[in-house]
Amino acid sequence: MGRIMEKELQELKDKLLRLGALVESQVERSVTSLVERDNMLAASVIDTDHEVNRLEVEIDEDCILLLALRHPEASDLRFVTTAMKIVTDLERMGDLAVDISERALEINEEPLLKPYIDIPRMARAARQMLKDALDAFVNKDAALARKVTESDDYVDNLNHQIFRELLLFMLEDPHTISRAIRISYVSKYLERIADHATNIAEMVVYLVEGKIIRHMDKA
Amino acid sequence: MGRIMEKELQELKDKLLRLGALVESQVERSVTSLVERDNMLAASVIDTDHEVNRLEVEIDEDCILLLALRHPEASDLRFVTTAMKIVTDLERMGDLAVDISERALEINEEPLLKPYIDIPRMARAARQMLKDALDAFVNKDAALARKVTESDDYVDNLNHQIFRELLLFMLEDPHTISRAIRISYVSKYLERIADHATNIAEMVVYLVEGKIIRHMDKA
Repeated sequence: MGRIMEKELQELKDKLLRLGALVESQVERSVTSLVERDNMLAASVIDTDHEVNRLEVEIDEDCILLLALRHPEASDLRFVTTAMKIVTDLERMGDLAVDISERALEINEEPLLKPYIDIPRMARAARQMLKDALDAFVNKDAALARKVTESDDYVDNLNHQIFRELLLFMLEDPHTISRAIRISYVSKYLERIADHATNIAEMVVYLVEGKIIRHMDKA
Repeated sequence: MGRIMEKELQELKDKLLRLGALVESQVERSVTSLVERDNMLAASVIDTDHEVNRLEVEIDEDCILLLALRHPEASDLRFVTTAMKIVTDLERMGDLAVDISERALEINEEPLLKPYIDIPRMARAARQMLKDALDAFVNKDAALARKVTESDDYVDNLNHQIFRELLLFMLEDPHTISRAIRISYVSKYLERIADHATNIAEMVVYLVEGKIIRHMDKA
């Protein structure tokens, strides 16, 4: 591989990691804005959105240029096309963090339903999955990518658990319904963030091993 | 453009339209399985999933080969990289149709809450958006793509309307909660299918005009 391409691929990795860190911080702040009822923090997540979008477009354009000028081959080519798919997932995770913040602003208008325990737990797991999925990508680490896909069940289970608990609240006291449903949305958004991390991890396994694991549980 | 590349790009368009038609049919059947309480039909949607996945992988590999062997330039290059992103959106729309079918199987276990009116309306709109977005892509028709992005509000509004109506059911009779929430999930899945169509349409506008409209409403 030529020295120029090597340098450009490294820059691409660095930018992707930067975008990943930005989105991770959005997810963290969005959930904190809910847990600590901090509307300023929620607003700050919504504010960061344009930075995420700008970086997404920039990385996409970098990839197009790389393809047009360097004609990468074999695994380098697959690396670049996978990066273009991953960047879309990252941007959508950022959008979901914005959605969480918007729900937080609404939920914070009403009295606290109950202290949040499982939601922060879910958020931690989803953030770790995002971080690991990106690390797996830049280091072509299929084992780490598989670890991410295995964590998805944990997040799904938490989502169901949260939902069942909220259902009990609603059944007992219909006045909690609108709050409970908004909280269930936050839980669902976190589940979708974890899904995106899983999608990334599955692409990494395919990139490294040529094996398609994304559809294995759906045969 | 060489005659070989022209032929290969045409084949790529044909396959994408075939995948689009398959997903459109999944969306239609999933909602019909709910409305007509037809569990066999729901199962058939789940069955088609592997075909969608196979076609997704095939198109992805076609694109990689095209990039590796033909080195498309300028707008052809962007067309191929955009196709690789679109195919991911299509596959996820197929997954959402499977989700709808799974909820339909659950909802069909319980008595009918009320006849479905807005859900089929949403489904029709979402399917039209999917169809138009793909047509806009293969014909590089930015005007049609913009029409798709404008339909997104209509679907979002229907989703909110359905949600408010279900909330009234739940408040009046807590026994309806589990059914109502599952129906609200179906509505949310349809909204996400429309979101994917919007994503595709936004990519088409960017492809044709170089303008980024996907983040305009979020500044």
